[in-house]
Amino acid sequence: MGQKEKAFIGLDLGGTFLKYALGTGDGTILHKGKLPSHGSQSADAIFNVMFQAVAELLEKAEKEGVEVGAIGVGSPGAIDFNTGRVLGNTPNLPLWTNADIRGRIQEKYHIPVYADNDANIAILAEARFGAAKGCPNVVGLTLGTGIGGGVVINDQLFRGAGFSGAELGHMTINFQGPKCGCGSSGCVEAYASATAMVRNYKEKLAARHMPLPERLNTELIFAHARSGEEEAMQTIDEVCFYLGVAIGNIINIFNPEIIVIGGGVADAGDAFITRIWQNVDGHVLTAAQSIARLVRAELGNNAGVVGAIALAADSYKAWHM
Amino acid sequence: MGQKEKAFIGLDLGGTFLKYALGTGDGTILHKGKLPSHGSQSADAIFNVMFQAVAELLEKAEKEGVEVGAIGVGSPGAIDFNTGRVLGNTPNLPLWTNADIRGRIQEKYHIPVYADNDANIAILAEARFGAAKGCPNVVGLTLGTGIGGGVVINDQLFRGAGFSGAELGHMTINFQGPKCGCGSSGCVEAYASATAMVRNYKEKLAARHMPLPERLNTELIFAHARSGEEEAMQTIDEVCFYLGVAIGNIINIFNPEIIVIGGGVADAGDAFITRIWQNVDGHVLTAAQSIARLVRAELGNNAGVVGAIALAADSYKAWHM
Repeated sequence: MGQKEKAFIGLDLGGTFLKYALGTGDGTILHKGKLPSHGSQSADAIFNVMFQAVAELLEKAEKEGVEVGAIGVGSPGAIDFNTGRVLGNTPNLPLWTNADIRGRIQEKYHIPVYADNDANIAILAEARFGAAKGCPNVVGLTLGTGIGGGVVINDQLFRGAGFSGAELGHMTINFQGPKCGCGSSGCVEAYASATAMVRNYKEKLAARHMPLPERLNTELIFAHARSGEEEAMQTIDEVCFYLGVAIGNIINIFNPEIIVIGGGVADAGDAFITRIWQNVDGHVLTAAQSIARLVRAELGNNAGVVGAIALAADSYKAWHM
Repeated sequence: MGQKEKAFIGLDLGGTFLKYALGTGDGTILHKGKLPSHGSQSADAIFNVMFQAVAELLEKAEKEGVEVGAIGVGSPGAIDFNTGRVLGNTPNLPLWTNADIRGRIQEKYHIPVYADNDANIAILAEARFGAAKGCPNVVGLTLGTGIGGGVVINDQLFRGAGFSGAELGHMTINFQGPKCGCGSSGCVEAYASATAMVRNYKEKLAARHMPLPERLNTELIFAHARSGEEEAMQTIDEVCFYLGVAIGNIINIFNPEIIVIGGGVADAGDAFITRIWQNVDGHVLTAAQSIARLVRAELGNNAGVVGAIALAADSYKAWHM
């Protein structure tokens, strides 16, 4: 009687910013914001930014007349979903090693806290509210500085025995290939991340004694390709081939209904996605390919907070049904 | 009151033989047998062999004073677990295409029938009663003429959206590698199946103008390696390298507690498993590797029927709890 509508808080921690939002279980965002995460100061500094975000969102919830049922947090690193703690170290956020995300936030706000890896919650967001809405079996690939992966099986996030599964960027597609940052060789990440793409393009320019543009990034490569530059076009052809091989593997392994490509490179557009899909042909078992689709992520920069809200809403429901 | 103990029937269909057994939910086999499967005659001929096996096992159950709760069937091909039908074609058993396994057996015996892919039930057997007993997250690789895969996640068989997931043998580990029977290139199967191993060994002998032994198989290669023959030792070294790369990928992707190697080649012994594991080093993320173990399958030729019994027992329990 008179029970308030439930809302959820989503926090998406990155090395530079903490994004945060208040939303409902159907993915509607009521309020959102962004603060510097102070990742290079200390874990306490990061927690203080999180506290500031939560306080702001609780105030908004009060004004909106909704009650916050749970807080979801997406964080870099392997996160023990059962305890809400970071497992071991987080290379891109070294001071965050072993952080007790659930413990610290729950202690302060007495609201249930659920934490998971940032790549996981991004694909959860797409599966619940984005490009893969309605699909029980989803694989996500995020193409950025590195390549992240996330997998949803029968509507549930797949995490692995040690909460470090779905490292799809570190699947070797050529054991004779280039060294990867992880120490292995020929990983998808070493071939098809934004970093690899820029390196590949630079090598092509250098080989032809062409000048290197300033501030070289994948956007510029796509722009040059559109203007017909041979080296840029070749670079994109090659990345489509590598991703075709990788996605062929992913389809043979996971037999999903849908594969969602996210990250900056995916913003290159649907033509890029179509060319990747053409390159899957010949690298996949036909029965599995016939039920699979390749699409672009839809939620963009919001995927993190929306996924954190979805995580909170899912976990809340699991306890209140 | 006076209710009989439940037992389960397991049928394991292969191209040459149908293996069958009566067992209890704890994996104990009460009776087992083997009949030619008549796979080259007709689907009806195969069903008649299945009926003969079921009739024999029902008689044994009667004598043992146990009641058969369900029938589990392992079959080649992709099997729709929800309907118990073969999906599409079965290359190694062409007449079995689209066979209605559940429909035909249930119609005759009025006992619930559950069917699944043979590689899936073999790894289910190892997870329930064999080398991976007690592990919730298990990956199985069966090294034979081809390379089959099976995955258990949180104690449940992973099947994929179209029941054709976990085709781990068709993961490309070198897109510049040899053509695979599936049409792709550089699949694990093209590098490390028994077939590939024999081919690789033959090529080495031929290159050195050495005579080809008659009836060449992997057992012989291992025997020659033990006697110190260079070509055989190299062949095994190479297969260990390829499997090391593949298992590194599998660990990065699935983050399992345990990987179980089965099939004829695995009978080469624990030293072979140890050498494969050494080759995983350098091809894997250390956090995931640190919780994983690589072991030999334990159930051998019984894995199929024991897995079919486990499938029947699991499914029976799911309906009676």
